[in-house]
Amino acid sequence: MPESADHPALSPDRLRARYGDALPDGPLPGGPVLELLLAHRTVRAFDPRPLPEGTLEALVAAAQSAPSSSNLQAWSVVAVQDPARRARLAALAANQAHVRDCLLLLVWLADLSRLDRVAERAGGTAGANRYLEMFLVAVVDAALAAQNALVAAEAMGLGTCYIGAMRNQPEAVAEELALSPDAFAVFGLCVGWPDAARPAAVKPRLPQPAVLYHERCDTGAEAGQVARYEPAMQAFQASQALAPVGWAGTASARVRGPESLSGRDRLQAALTRLGFGLQ
Amino acid sequence: MPESADHPALSPDRLRARYGDALPDGPLPGGPVLELLLAHRTVRAFDPRPLPEGTLEALVAAAQSAPSSSNLQAWSVVAVQDPARRARLAALAANQAHVRDCLLLLVWLADLSRLDRVAERAGGTAGANRYLEMFLVAVVDAALAAQNALVAAEAMGLGTCYIGAMRNQPEAVAEELALSPDAFAVFGLCVGWPDAARPAAVKPRLPQPAVLYHERCDTGAEAGQVARYEPAMQAFQASQALAPVGWAGTASARVRGPESLSGRDRLQAALTRLGFGLQ
Repeated sequence: MPESADHPALSPDRLRARYGDALPDGPLPGGPVLELLLAHRTVRAFDPRPLPEGTLEALVAAAQSAPSSSNLQAWSVVAVQDPARRARLAALAANQAHVRDCLLLLVWLADLSRLDRVAERAGGTAGANRYLEMFLVAVVDAALAAQNALVAAEAMGLGTCYIGAMRNQPEAVAEELALSPDAFAVFGLCVGWPDAARPAAVKPRLPQPAVLYHERCDTGAEAGQVARYEPAMQAFQASQALAPVGWAGTASARVRGPESLSGRDRLQAALTRLGFGLQ
Repeated sequence: MPESADHPALSPDRLRARYGDALPDGPLPGGPVLELLLAHRTVRAFDPRPLPEGTLEALVAAAQSAPSSSNLQAWSVVAVQDPARRARLAALAANQAHVRDCLLLLVWLADLSRLDRVAERAGGTAGANRYLEMFLVAVVDAALAAQNALVAAEAMGLGTCYIGAMRNQPEAVAEELALSPDAFAVFGLCVGWPDAARPAAVKPRLPQPAVLYHERCDTGAEAGQVARYEPAMQAFQASQALAPVGWAGTASARVRGPESLSGRDRLQAALTRLGFGLQ
């Protein structure tokens, strides 16, 4: 692909930060939006400058512009700015300091409750909401919306961090946020100005051939691709003052058994208690 | 928020296309990325011009730059370009013509199989993969990655359409794509050049107060907000030569019962057959 003003190529530095030496064959199409997406990093250190007026509404407008399955819009978001509430949510989410220290915590809900109410007002019932499929629709809707908000935040120069630990104690989170039955906090998203004194780094990912298949899956080359990834992860870990143990060992430990799930091995029971049918 | 070259405001036209008359209070922070996100529309009519060289790899680089829970990267993507395979997948997905007629179909997988193999090569097992939590991690990872790819595609001028019907017959899709156990096609994404002769329109969404809560959920104003939404949806439907029935009736019908799920009421059984533990 020829590089030109209309068709700039993705910058090699961005690709190298993401893939180390295991670069895809290039040049690849680029431009400012692709550069922004590739520059993503997780920000856990925020400075206390306030967000510009209208930030929350702009992020929600971006989120609502993401696709939604059958336009059911089976998600909601709770904006938590009260420091006391963020501190209580941090205590429920593995005591992550950035939940407490960011200025804005967005809690993204897989939310079938609105459809329950819409159906009820129409004089019927939402029987399909008792099925795993509709739970999945709501989770995917919430994730697509949240990711659009993340991209919008980064475009505004803000930093973000997803909080999966919001699932460690789902019933307590639901009570704190007054969730209706059939609503569930899938994850949080911390938003704030990155602290320039504690900059975040781009995390390398697996080489493309480990995640991208053509026509049909073929995992024959996978072990070699994972081996190519280890030096990039080790270099990243060393740069973060972490033990340079690489990826495969860390990932294996993370999925060893239910004891590695921080309490989320009881997710199914918690969802049932929150009202979801998962048949 | 004052408008300036550094801090442009979101254009009122974009907000009006998304919200009709139920606009959020403004002005809101904007800029080219927010304008792009708000301009999203679902494209189902493609022209056959080939994609620029490197498009697939650039989209995957964007996808891999999305956050991943604990960096487990529990997703994969299958790029389907073979017309015969796309035709077979279209037949499995409610015969949607655009699955057949787009140039590139990306099938996004919630994929725990790589972690199974990584753990096995490390001499252990991935016992946590038997839990609903890990299935959820994989689905969310896949959705965040796919949405980044969608944003990248739209930045390149391409059009896209998610295909939830890829879940209508999960086992047959898995066989067609040679998926490993513990891998599942969450949705497809059609990619191609929008057909200028059949332009797509921006679909309006619920007013912000129907999906955005502050501190705690309060659904007291919801019925009124849904009522405010109906004229925007009716105008959209009329513009698309659809019956102007609004949203609440359509959404209620879509979730009435298992018969409205296009076969996806058996998703749990299908996932079990594909190897997933969902305890």
